[in-house]
Amino acid sequence: MKRKSSRSILRALYASSEASADVLYLSGVFVPDAFLCLIKGKHSIGIVSRLEYTRVKATSKFKEVLLLESVRAEAAQRFKVKVSTIGAAELIRYFTILLACDGVEIPSNFPAGLYAKLQSHGVDVSVAEDPFFPSRELKSDEEANAIRQGNRASAAGFRVAERVLKESKIEGKRLKYAGSILTSERLRHLIDGECLARGALAQHTIVAGGEQACDPHETGYGPLKPNELIIIDVFPRIRATGYHGDMTRTFLKGRASDAQRQLVGTVKAAQKAAIARVKAGVSCSSVHEAAAGIFESRDYRTERQGDTFVGFIHSTGHGLGLEVHEVPRVSRGAGRLRKGQVITIEPGLYYPGLGGCRIEDVVRVTKDGCEKLSSFHYRWEFK
Amino acid sequence: MKRKSSRSILRALYASSEASADVLYLSGVFVPDAFLCLIKGKHSIGIVSRLEYTRVKATSKFKEVLLLESVRAEAAQRFKVKVSTIGAAELIRYFTILLACDGVEIPSNFPAGLYAKLQSHGVDVSVAEDPFFPSRELKSDEEANAIRQGNRASAAGFRVAERVLKESKIEGKRLKYAGSILTSERLRHLIDGECLARGALAQHTIVAGGEQACDPHETGYGPLKPNELIIIDVFPRIRATGYHGDMTRTFLKGRASDAQRQLVGTVKAAQKAAIARVKAGVSCSSVHEAAAGIFESRDYRTERQGDTFVGFIHSTGHGLGLEVHEVPRVSRGAGRLRKGQVITIEPGLYYPGLGGCRIEDVVRVTKDGCEKLSSFHYRWEFK
Repeated sequence: MKRKSSRSILRALYASSEASADVLYLSGVFVPDAFLCLIKGKHSIGIVSRLEYTRVKATSKFKEVLLLESVRAEAAQRFKVKVSTIGAAELIRYFTILLACDGVEIPSNFPAGLYAKLQSHGVDVSVAEDPFFPSRELKSDEEANAIRQGNRASAAGFRVAERVLKESKIEGKRLKYAGSILTSERLRHLIDGECLARGALAQHTIVAGGEQACDPHETGYGPLKPNELIIIDVFPRIRATGYHGDMTRTFLKGRASDAQRQLVGTVKAAQKAAIARVKAGVSCSSVHEAAAGIFESRDYRTERQGDTFVGFIHSTGHGLGLEVHEVPRVSRGAGRLRKGQVITIEPGLYYPGLGGCRIEDVVRVTKDGCEKLSSFHYRWEFK
Repeated sequence: MKRKSSRSILRALYASSEASADVLYLSGVFVPDAFLCLIKGKHSIGIVSRLEYTRVKATSKFKEVLLLESVRAEAAQRFKVKVSTIGAAELIRYFTILLACDGVEIPSNFPAGLYAKLQSHGVDVSVAEDPFFPSRELKSDEEANAIRQGNRASAAGFRVAERVLKESKIEGKRLKYAGSILTSERLRHLIDGECLARGALAQHTIVAGGEQACDPHETGYGPLKPNELIIIDVFPRIRATGYHGDMTRTFLKGRASDAQRQLVGTVKAAQKAAIARVKAGVSCSSVHEAAAGIFESRDYRTERQGDTFVGFIHSTGHGLGLEVHEVPRVSRGAGRLRKGQVITIEPGLYYPGLGGCRIEDVVRVTKDGCEKLSSFHYRWEFK
């Protein structure tokens, strides 16, 4: 997939900045519909319709913004065809000629339909290796601050959850808050509302108690119960910047059993061990093993039980930025950490009958270790 | 792109149900990371990791849910390679063999990287014509109700906006609400919070007044002013179903000028004319022309003025469903309406100096006309 540097390559993206973090990273503006971005060397071009033109021209990071309607007309004239036949593939072909490029490079998530059309036009097009923008993986101070802001929204959500649980009353197998039964949905709504008040959009916030929490992607539903572990995972996106926070805490209202205390303590110890391993040059795999090692040493087994998987059934973490899940993966077999990467550290244990526990924070990798980009206490048992 | 019916085709999708409305439509569950969906005839298969397995098996619409880890191991054994070399492309190849398929069909937004890999594996792969699921375009009663629910959230947002504007006090060139200055951001926050309370996620809600409203995708910022047209466009997504509402109203606090009243009246007349044209078999183009015709007949011109475009600078509407913008487009040159399509009708006029106005409702196309799926009054001038 490598190309000789002597060749002149046009890089092309086609997506909305909603759907593509790469497009948002490049353009710096929210454009709701798919549009064409072209890059030659350090020159970037955004081609947008008249509906977007003024705004994108005024606020985007593009070096040049072109009007789709004009460019289509020019391409039609050049190719001596009707304007209606000029779509994104034809425009890419037009610009390879105009900018004297030998070939086109596209990201791996480029639409296959457009790719096939470019091939049929005889354009020399190749799929770039991921990531398309390697610099996206290494976060600047500004980006780290944007992620911190996201995590402040997550933490604000936890503060709401803590207050609600503390103020709730245990009535039999239910929790009552402000006079009515406290459900996952209701607590999620309060958390998400708090994120909104902080300019952050929370989606699929997890508020899952008891058995539900043993399924790590179950968002949770129905009444929350006393004396059960409740996993709360909040990963809001700051509207203004597009960067995410991502934090998890596990709470319990009532009185924890010894087994629950041991579980939570072990997950906390695993998180601590994993964070202590983080440092530029260290393999992601060994960070994961640091957490897994704690679990193994304390005899928390990871295994399949029929259709269910129990124990430490996910990886230790993932990159965080404009997407909730970015490179790198902090898991078995993954490569080395690099300075500037922002990753989550979120070991967890899940045992139906006992419950689930996950604790998640966010760090930026430094030369000597890491800096924490998330902050919230670890108290979890609320009487 | 047509294939003979005697051939046995495997249809493949690879995306998260966040990113792909097709995947959400097929699976009926929210899965945050990209995963493989396969369809042979009426049989659909979802292949998910152990992190998703139990939940997807219990709640999805797939006919069969397979465990990614097991399937990868089986494919590795079959191909006599290491498990680590088995990715989505290799799994698709494996299933074409297993299910005795002659070729693979993918949607146009399938990732180009995977497509290229399938080609390099010698798989006979072709890009299907859009839409991948033609049935998505024609909404069932259940889907229409889900869209109605989305529009009820939009309308609830307007009710909040109306109340806030009515209760605001004009102080010079500012509006004061509950003791402090009313900005676009603040009103947007109140609207989005109301949507949230109705189980709907509002993103990029437009609250744009005066000159800002002349840029139809500007979401609006800073203090709202009296005697200016304020466009409010709310398109929330119902969390439980994934279906959207999409409505726009244009409000004014204070006293409108004759020119503003004429503008709003003309846009309302254009919307009425366009809705009156809607009927199965009628061309989308003629619905658009019905609106454009009203503007032309009243001498509201659409033209370029330097870098700015004024007049009726967008299409009349678009399909609405799991995505905010779906087929069909209600614009010049577009095809015929079909029974069951759900479309927005949202003509607008934009003139810097005077302001912008857009009025948007949602209808479902019927044999004899259309049924409205949105409901909110058209009063707009609040003293």
